[in-house]
Amino acid sequence: MKHPFGFPLALPERGSRQRMPALHGQLRAAILDGRLKPGLRLPATRELAETLAVSRNTVVVAYDLLLGEGYIEARRGAGHFVADLAVRRGERHARGDVVTPDGRLAPYWRSFASLPAPMRTDGFAYDFRLGIPDSRGFPYDIWRRLSARALRNLSKAAPLYDLAQGRWPLRQAIAQHISFARAVSCDAEDVIVTSGAQQAFDLLARVLVTPGHTVVAVEDPGYPPLRAVFLTAGARVVGVPVDEEGLIVEQLPHDAHVIYVTPSHQFPLGVVMSPRRRVALLAFARARGALVIEDDYDSEFRYSPRPLDALQTLDRDDAVCYVGTFSKCLFPSLRLGYAVVPPWLRSAFAHAKHQADWHGDVLAQDTLAAFMAEGHLVRHVRHMRKVYAARRDVLLAALQRHGKHHMRVWASDAGLHLAAKLHAPTDVTALLRRAAASGINLECLSAYAMAGAAEEGLAFGFGMIEVERMDEGIARLMRAIA
Amino acid sequence: MKHPFGFPLALPERGSRQRMPALHGQLRAAILDGRLKPGLRLPATRELAETLAVSRNTVVVAYDLLLGEGYIEARRGAGHFVADLAVRRGERHARGDVVTPDGRLAPYWRSFASLPAPMRTDGFAYDFRLGIPDSRGFPYDIWRRLSARALRNLSKAAPLYDLAQGRWPLRQAIAQHISFARAVSCDAEDVIVTSGAQQAFDLLARVLVTPGHTVVAVEDPGYPPLRAVFLTAGARVVGVPVDEEGLIVEQLPHDAHVIYVTPSHQFPLGVVMSPRRRVALLAFARARGALVIEDDYDSEFRYSPRPLDALQTLDRDDAVCYVGTFSKCLFPSLRLGYAVVPPWLRSAFAHAKHQADWHGDVLAQDTLAAFMAEGHLVRHVRHMRKVYAARRDVLLAALQRHGKHHMRVWASDAGLHLAAKLHAPTDVTALLRRAAASGINLECLSAYAMAGAAEEGLAFGFGMIEVERMDEGIARLMRAIA
Repeated sequence: MKHPFGFPLALPERGSRQRMPALHGQLRAAILDGRLKPGLRLPATRELAETLAVSRNTVVVAYDLLLGEGYIEARRGAGHFVADLAVRRGERHARGDVVTPDGRLAPYWRSFASLPAPMRTDGFAYDFRLGIPDSRGFPYDIWRRLSARALRNLSKAAPLYDLAQGRWPLRQAIAQHISFARAVSCDAEDVIVTSGAQQAFDLLARVLVTPGHTVVAVEDPGYPPLRAVFLTAGARVVGVPVDEEGLIVEQLPHDAHVIYVTPSHQFPLGVVMSPRRRVALLAFARARGALVIEDDYDSEFRYSPRPLDALQTLDRDDAVCYVGTFSKCLFPSLRLGYAVVPPWLRSAFAHAKHQADWHGDVLAQDTLAAFMAEGHLVRHVRHMRKVYAARRDVLLAALQRHGKHHMRVWASDAGLHLAAKLHAPTDVTALLRRAAASGINLECLSAYAMAGAAEEGLAFGFGMIEVERMDEGIARLMRAIA
Repeated sequence: MKHPFGFPLALPERGSRQRMPALHGQLRAAILDGRLKPGLRLPATRELAETLAVSRNTVVVAYDLLLGEGYIEARRGAGHFVADLAVRRGERHARGDVVTPDGRLAPYWRSFASLPAPMRTDGFAYDFRLGIPDSRGFPYDIWRRLSARALRNLSKAAPLYDLAQGRWPLRQAIAQHISFARAVSCDAEDVIVTSGAQQAFDLLARVLVTPGHTVVAVEDPGYPPLRAVFLTAGARVVGVPVDEEGLIVEQLPHDAHVIYVTPSHQFPLGVVMSPRRRVALLAFARARGALVIEDDYDSEFRYSPRPLDALQTLDRDDAVCYVGTFSKCLFPSLRLGYAVVPPWLRSAFAHAKHQADWHGDVLAQDTLAAFMAEGHLVRHVRHMRKVYAARRDVLLAALQRHGKHHMRVWASDAGLHLAAKLHAPTDVTALLRRAAASGINLECLSAYAMAGAAEEGLAFGFGMIEVERMDEGIARLMRAIA
C-alpha cells in the first residue's frame, strides 16, 4: 500500500500479471469518482514506478491505456494530466441541485422538484408523531436466531426466483393469525405478501384504475399516501366525510368503484366504524359492484374487551380486500405487509406484483414465518398492547385534566394514536410552531384532510413517547394553546 | 389440551377470566378456517364443559356469543350447528378456480386468467436454464455474521421509515463498486436502491410513460419482463433488431422516447454492443432527447482481458440510466438492484419508489453494504468468474465439437449464458420436447422475440449446470437435433 496520490493503491505481488490492470483500474476509478481531480498532473512514469516498486513499463502501459480511453491527456513537455471527463460529474451535480421540469418525464411526474423529505430523527422531548411503533420491546435476539436458521435453510435450496404471491409458510402463518385475531375469513391461498401495506395499495391502484374513468372514494380526513397512489394511477379521488361512526356511507358518490376505509381505527380520527355503517357500506358495494379496501393498519392493539371483527368478516360478496401490515406491530423497516385478495382480483394482483418486483425479500419472509409459527408475534403484540394501553390511559387522563376546555377527544378503542377536535378556531400552524419551541412534536388533523375540508384538531401518537413524559407534554401543550 | 373436535383447544388455567374468551375465539377461528365444517353439530354445553373441565356457564356464554355473531345456529331440540357462514369460503374457492374477466378490473388486467407460473424446480439432468446463478459457492456464513451485526445495529436505532432512495452505506458501496468495476460515472447520491432490477424498470416506466404517447424501443429478441412493464404503463413498444454488433441503431424509430439496451451482454443473444453503435446510440439519444436504459445484468462475469466500459461511462448528456442487479452476482431471492439515475430524473424516480413501497428491506441493504465494504462481493465475483469461465470454455468446446453442423454460436465475452443460431429451419418446439425427454432443459430464442420476429436458435445458461455434465448434455442435444 503506497499513497502517491493521497489514497492507497493496492497492487498484486511482484511477478503477478495483474499489476498493470490493477494500476490502470484503480487510477481510472479514482478519476471517475473524483479523487483525482481534472487538471491534476500525474507523477512522471519513472517516479511512480519507483514509489510503487513496479517496472516503469507497467506504469507506461497503464498511462497509455488511460490516454487511449480519454481519462488522462498528455501535454507536450509537461507530463500527463487528468482529463476533462471528470468535469462532467461536477457539472452534473451543479445541475442536480436545480431540477427543472423535464419534458422527458410523464406530465404527472414533472411536479416533483425535490427528493422525498427524510423523516426527522432529531429528538423532541415530547414526540407525539403518528405511525411509528416502539421497537424497544422487540425480541431482536429471537429474530436474529430465526433469521440465521432461515438463511441456513435457504443456503441449501436452489437460488431460484420465488412466487410473486410470497412464501407459502408466511402466507399460512398470516392466514392463521388473522383468522384468529381478526376473524378474517381466509386461507393461505388468499394471502399475497407485499412490501408493506403501501405496495398493496399501489398494486390495487394499478389493477383497478382505468385512467380518467375510475372513481375512488376515500375517508376525509384520511391517509395521504393512499390518495397519492390512486391519483398517480389516474383515478378521480373523492373525499367522503367521517363522523363518530366512521365514513358517512350515505355521502359516498354514486359512481364510486373503489372505497378505501380504516374501519377498526380511522386514520387519523381514531373512531371505530359502527356496525350500522359497516352493513350499509357492504350493501353499497354489493349494489354498485364496488371494491372496498379495508386498511387494518394497527388494530392488533385493541383496548376494549369485545372489539368488532374486521369488515372483511361480514363480506359475503368478495367485495372487500383486506390489507394488513407488520410495520406497526413489529417495525416499519421490515417492509412486510399483505393483502387478503378475493378470487376475482387475485391473478391480476399477483401479476402486478410480479411485474413490480417479482417477489419480496425471501429471508425476511421466512424469518417472519418462523417468528409467527413459534408464537413470538402473538407474545410481542400481547406485551406491547399492555405498554400502549398504559400510555393511552395516561394520555387520555392528561388530555382530560389539562385540555378539556380546549378540545374534545374522539372516541377510539384501538391503535397507536388518539385525535382531538379543537373547540375554538385556532391558527394550528402557529400552535404547532409554539409547541415545537416547547419541545413538543405533534401533527394537526388538517394535514390529513383533502383541500377545503380542514378539520381543526390535533393528533397524538404514543408509539415513541415514554409514559412518564406524557402528562408533562400535554400540560406544556395546553400552555402553548392558552 | 383437550381434543373434543379433533384439534387442540388450549384454555388458560382454572380461575382465569380469559377462559370464555379463549374458548369463543378458538371455536370462531376453527369455524372460519374450516376446521369446523358448516352443518357440524357442536357438543352439548354440559358435555363440552365436562370434557374441558370448565364451568357449564363458560360454554353457554361462548355459544351465545357465537350465536349472536352468526357463526353457529341453534336448531330447536337438536342443539347447535356450525352456520352457513363457512360455506362461503368453499364457494369462494370453487369460484377461485375459474376466474372470469371481471369488469371491476382495469381493462389491461382482465386478461390474466391464472396466477403467475411458478419456476420449475424439478431436476433436469442437464439444466441450461437462463438467468439463474450458482449460489453454492456463496459465503453464507459471512452473510449470516454480517446480517446479525446489521440487526444488532438496527435494534439500537429508532424504528423510523427510511429514505426511499435506499440506505446510504449501500448507495456508497454500490457507487464505489461500479465506478471501479464498470467505470460507471457516479456518486452515492446518483444511486437509488430498488427491489431487483425489475423494480427499477417498473419505476422508470411509471415516470417516463405518457399512455398512448410514449414510444419505447427495445431489443428484439429481448427481455420480456421489461416489455411487460412498459406495455402495462401504456407505452407503444417497438422491437428493433439486433446483430453481431448489438442493437441496430439505424433502425430505431425516429420518435423513440426511451431505448432499452443490454450493451455488455445482449439478452438473449449474448453479443457485445460495438463501440461504433454505442457512439451512434448516444448521438441518437442526444439529438432526440431520448433516455437510454442500460441494463447491465450480468457483466460482472467477463471473460475478455479488455472489456468495454459501460455505455453510461461514455454519456455526456445525462441520457443514460444505468440499471444493475445483485440477482446474478449474488442470488435472486435477495431482491436487490439499483439504478444510477441522472439528475433530471432523480426526484421523480425517488417519489415513484416512495409511492411504490416507501423503501426496501433495511436489514438486507445493511448486510449487503457491509458485505461489499469488507470486499466479499469482489472476492465472490472473482471466485465465480473462474467457475463460470471454466463452464463457458467447456460449453463452447462442446458446441463446437458436437454442434458445428447444426448451429453457430453468437460471439460473447460476458455473463452466464451463450446463444446459438440454428443453420437449418427447425421445429424448435418439437426439439425442446425431445430435449426435455433426454433430461435437457434449455430455451429457444424465439421465446424472447416479439411477435413476427422469431430468431431460430437456442440459449444455454451455465449458472445451474456442473461443468462435468456439459459435454454430455450438448452431445445428447445434438442427437435430438439430428
